[in-house]
Amino acid sequence: MTNAQITLIQIDNYGPWTVTPEPRREVDLQTLQSRLYADLSQLIGNREGYVFFTRFDNMVAVTNGLSLDDHALVQESVGNRYPVTVSLSVATGTNPVQALHDATELLQDAGSAQDHSRREILDGRTIDEEFRTDDDVQIAHFDVNDMTGNYTDEVNAFDSFIHIEQGYAELMRYMREAHDSLSFFVGGDNVIAVCPNLTESDYEDAIRHVKESVEVDLKVGVGQGRVPQDAGMDAKHALETCRATGSKIEFE
Amino acid sequence: MTNAQITLIQIDNYGPWTVTPEPRREVDLQTLQSRLYADLSQLIGNREGYVFFTRFDNMVAVTNGLSLDDHALVQESVGNRYPVTVSLSVATGTNPVQALHDATELLQDAGSAQDHSRREILDGRTIDEEFRTDDDVQIAHFDVNDMTGNYTDEVNAFDSFIHIEQGYAELMRYMREAHDSLSFFVGGDNVIAVCPNLTESDYEDAIRHVKESVEVDLKVGVGQGRVPQDAGMDAKHALETCRATGSKIEFE
Amino acid sequence: MTNAQITLIQIDNYGPWTVTPEPRREVDLQTLQSRLYADLSQLIGNREGYVFFTRFDNMVAVTNGLSLDDHALVQESVGNRYPVTVSLSVATGTNPVQALHDATELLQDAGSAQDHSRREILDGRTIDEEFRTDDDVQIAHFDVNDMTGNYTDEVNAFDSFIHIEQGYAELMRYMREAHDSLSFFVGGDNVIAVCPNLTESDYEDAIRHVKESVEVDLKVGVGQGRVPQDAGMDAKHALETCRATGSKIEFE
Amino acid sequence: MTNAQITLIQIDNYGPWTVTPEPRREVDLQTLQSRLYADLSQLIGNREGYVFFTRFDNMVAVTNGLSLDDHALVQESVGNRYPVTVSLSVATGTNPVQALHDATELLQDAGSAQDHSRREILDGRTIDEEFRTDDDVQIAHFDVNDMTGNYTDEVNAFDSFIHIEQGYAELMRYMREAHDSLSFFVGGDNVIAVCPNLTESDYEDAIRHVKESVEVDLKVGVGQGRVPQDAGMDAKHALETCRATGSKIEFE
Ligand SMILES: Nc1nc2c(ncn2[C@@H]2O[C@H](COP(=O)(O)OP(=O)(O)OP(=O)(O)O)[C@@H](O)[C@H]2O)c(=O)[nH]1
Ligand SMILES: Nc1nc2c(ncn2[C@@H]2O[C@H](COP(=O)(O)OP(=O)(O)OP(=O)(O)O)[C@@H](O)[C@H]2O)c(=O)[nH]1
Ligand SMILES: Nc1nc2c(ncn2[C@@H]2O[C@H](COP(=O)(O)OP(=O)(O)OP(=O)(O)O)[C@@H](O)[C@H]2O)c(=O)[nH]1
Ligand SMILES: Nc1nc2c(ncn2[C@@H]2O[C@H](COP(=O)(O)OP(=O)(O)OP(=O)(O)O)[C@@H](O)[C@H]2O)c(=O)[nH]1
Ligand SMILES: [Ca+2]
Ligand SMILES: [Ca+2]
Ligand SMILES: [Ca+2]
Ligand SMILES: [Ca+2]
Repeated sequence: MTNAQITLIQIDNYGPWTVTPEPRREVDLQTLQSRLYADLSQLIGNREGYVFFTRFDNMVAVTNGLSLDDHALVQESVGNRYPVTVSLSVATGTNPVQALHDATELLQDAGSAQDHSRREILDGRTIDEEFRTDDDVQIAHFDVNDMTGNYTDEVNAFDSFIHIEQGYAELMRYMREAHDSLSFFVGGDNVIAVCPNLTESDYEDAIRHVKESVEVDLKVGVGQGRVPQDAGMDAKHALETCRATGSKIEFE
Repeated sequence: MTNAQITLIQIDNYGPWTVTPEPRREVDLQTLQSRLYADLSQLIGNREGYVFFTRFDNMVAVTNGLSLDDHALVQESVGNRYPVTVSLSVATGTNPVQALHDATELLQDAGSAQDHSRREILDGRTIDEEFRTDDDVQIAHFDVNDMTGNYTDEVNAFDSFIHIEQGYAELMRYMREAHDSLSFFVGGDNVIAVCPNLTESDYEDAIRHVKESVEVDLKVGVGQGRVPQDAGMDAKHALETCRATGSKIEFE
Repeated sequence: MTNAQITLIQIDNYGPWTVTPEPRREVDLQTLQSRLYADLSQLIGNREGYVFFTRFDNMVAVTNGLSLDDHALVQESVGNRYPVTVSLSVATGTNPVQALHDATELLQDAGSAQDHSRREILDGRTIDEEFRTDDDVQIAHFDVNDMTGNYTDEVNAFDSFIHIEQGYAELMRYMREAHDSLSFFVGGDNVIAVCPNLTESDYEDAIRHVKESVEVDLKVGVGQGRVPQDAGMDAKHALETCRATGSKIEFE
Repeated sequence: MTNAQITLIQIDNYGPWTVTPEPRREVDLQTLQSRLYADLSQLIGNREGYVFFTRFDNMVAVTNGLSLDDHALVQESVGNRYPVTVSLSVATGTNPVQALHDATELLQDAGSAQDHSRREILDGRTIDEEFRTDDDVQIAHFDVNDMTGNYTDEVNAFDSFIHIEQGYAELMRYMREAHDSLSFFVGGDNVIAVCPNLTESDYEDAIRHVKESVEVDLKVGVGQGRVPQDAGMDAKHALETCRATGSKIEFE
């Protein structure tokens, strides 16, 4: 049984800030957003969690192993170094979609994302140490087969990207609806999903669905662990096994 | 008539590097990628260009105003500060898709993205100073209507994101096929497109198409200028006019 | 009794790297060095440690509370994201100078700072959990009195800086020789020292010495704690008490 | 004849900010300061200027080749991405110390460094294009002889650093008083100086003085150019000639 701890990270009142007093230079917004994401990756990653950039103004993290105090430190550090602040809400559950749903609700109850008086919320609960197990996190690392040979080196960069985006959009929606999983594009031709206890045939189903709907060929490595870093690293090793053996699905 | 100068930025031999000698920690790859993007935003932005993260291992920039020497400096600076290097290829044209196509071909001709001896290519040509005009770049800034009130504050963070992704996937594909434009997600509920000389009815068509296919409601501000920064800032001001007047399409 | 845990961080073979194959652009070296330092500040700071930039190619950290595994993660993360690697050696003791001496020796025994085959050393020992106490770290935060009114707003920026540098050079040397302390410039007019169990009269002595030798007027706040962050924050509060009451030395 | 263009960069009202509402975590201040410096290095370096971290809250740049508009863009970009803002003032002259003096005065006249209503000043004048020459900037790159063999690999890291600091403190003061030059520590055992038209015997004098006063053995490479990047790179090549030939002073 998995038990994911999911954190929603929301930049406070960001929309209005981007246009006050005048629209701000896009390159600066891009820099701000991507560096904030990079910092969160390091701070949460330093405690073996994972963060996904998602919309950049709303990011999703898997934080098994991080306490609320650990969250508070991240929040304080962002507040000290950026012109914007972040709110964090945490929820847990066997179903990652439900956990994110609960985390979202907590934040919504505290006020609108564009309420300028709702700032630096830190709410929710983490998994008690005694209930943590070595199977709490299942992570699946999806990858497009021979993207380089078939696309990157062959068609123009935008059509390659459309191909990946199509695969990603279909995978993310299907994994969410059919398999209660949260899937995130992580660059290149890779998608990482946070899943409940899925089986080999669930992954087969998802890969087949994407192949049939949008003709994108995927392989997937799956890992499970106490913390995201362990599950994710196992998933990467499993993916290397796919590469070595030509198989489509591997569990480490 | 527009005359976009498009640069393709490709991390050299990145796929193999990410798994050599062992798969590298995902949080570090995320940090590396997003900081590289942030740096390019600053360096290219400092000369009034725009960069889009796209796949992160392949990024697309609009670089009207940057010479090949300016590109070389960016390339050298990346090489001095990152464990990876980048190749850059530049092409120009009235049709941004064609320009990116040409830039891609240049790079493909120099060798595979995963050829470890193909490194730090710098190729292509920029627009001669005498041929540059004040209409060279058309930029459209698309935004979802009342995303916060209808989604961010209402449904769970992942379903909000799926809504945006659907809109984006549809818009990017349609704008590419019907209107020869390159569209990029830039965070939040925003998409920025680099377009040839499109008219109001072209934008109407695109917005209608997205609304009909995936029920995502867009507005758009359009700007035109000598350099991306001017066109993009005009587009933002036009979008503010949409917000103020309730209109769906504004040209600045 | 204090028991400082000191980590020496050394960029491997950095001198030769800066000029291979040709001297590298100074602005890139500056960026690399200061960002590496910033990252270490975040990674070590996220576990309540302190880092000082010192020479940038050799940095000193106070790491009470960080295990060797924590150090290994930092080392791996740097290796994944920079074109250079770092070696880390750790030693402990009641006397911070002696601890740094021991840490230095460990690294020197492993090979030269400019031996290109000596890479990513991780050596030394941390304080066993059972021997850690709430007094392990004493930190003193020194600050020049009314630097702004007397210098920054009055003389030219370089002469202001010479004034600070003189005070710093004298303080660092005297604190090392007379009081077995490691003092580091941290920007502005501030110096932070890692000290053994010093008393109020020791600080009086140091402040008097600096005043007499180079006419720089200091005040100091002192804190003590289990980890650098607690000791350092107490020192800052003590310094605020100096500011409020006009006193020259405060212990929190 | 040199004609340096010097920019003083001052964080606005930084002292009060660091303790409002409570003292902020030192590791966050360190991160903020060093990243701001890194960003300025990239932005100013992208236009062939040099920046020195100096006090971090007051930095000094050599900006031959940057217009006031270029400065404005840097200022805007910092304001968009940091919780603090910066003021910039620019002055020029054959004597770098005098130029910094004039730049400082401009800023002081606009208000105190700790006046919370004095923000984002941009003042001064740059060298008119027609008056710029290929000899405008003279840069000297000083380096301690065999620092690694005599110190880094031999004595403890702090005593090595004290040795460098002594050399630096003496050099900076002497170069300022005897030779109207601004000298800055740039990490490792290196100091870079911005000089008026100095001769070989001036450098001989400075090296001798430092050797006699504090027993630090220096060599120096000197370059001259239209912009700091060219002068600085020439200085580095000259220093490599010192290394190759064993000489103490080389002009490129
Ligand atoms: N985020 C992330 N991206 C990766 C990782 N491995 C590869 N990538 C990305 O995926 C891109 C394509 O690399 P590969 O998947 O190795 O190449 P391929 O041509 O598709 O080959 P196969 O997958 O082996 O069939 C790279 O440029 C990276 O951007 C990873 O572990 N994490
Ligand atoms: N990259 C980028 N993102 C922006 C910009 N403006 C807003 N956003 C993003 O869009 C998100 C939503 O903000 P808005 O579009 O202002 O909010 P909304 O609720 O959709 O309201 P309306 O668009 O006014 O109907 C913000 O959180 C930002 O992430 C911009 O100029 N650039
Ligand atoms: N690293 C660091 N620097 C600080 C801190 N507080 C202040 N500074 C620096 O010190 C500079 C001067 O600020 P203050 O010391 O407050 O100003 P002052 O004019 O000397 O006034 P008093 O110290 O109150 O007499 C600031 O610009 C900062 O660079 C701190 O907590 N940490
Ligand atoms: N900022 C900067 N630092 C440098 C540069 N070159 C070397 N360093 C620094 O200087 C340190 C010592 O390197 P070297 O000066 O090459 O070594 P050394 O042992 O003193 O040898 P010699 O100078 O050749 O006698 C390095 O660790 C770097 O920190 C440079 O170009 N710029
Ligand atoms: Ca692949
Ligand atoms: Ca919107
Ligand atoms: Ca002070
Ligand atoms: Ca040296």
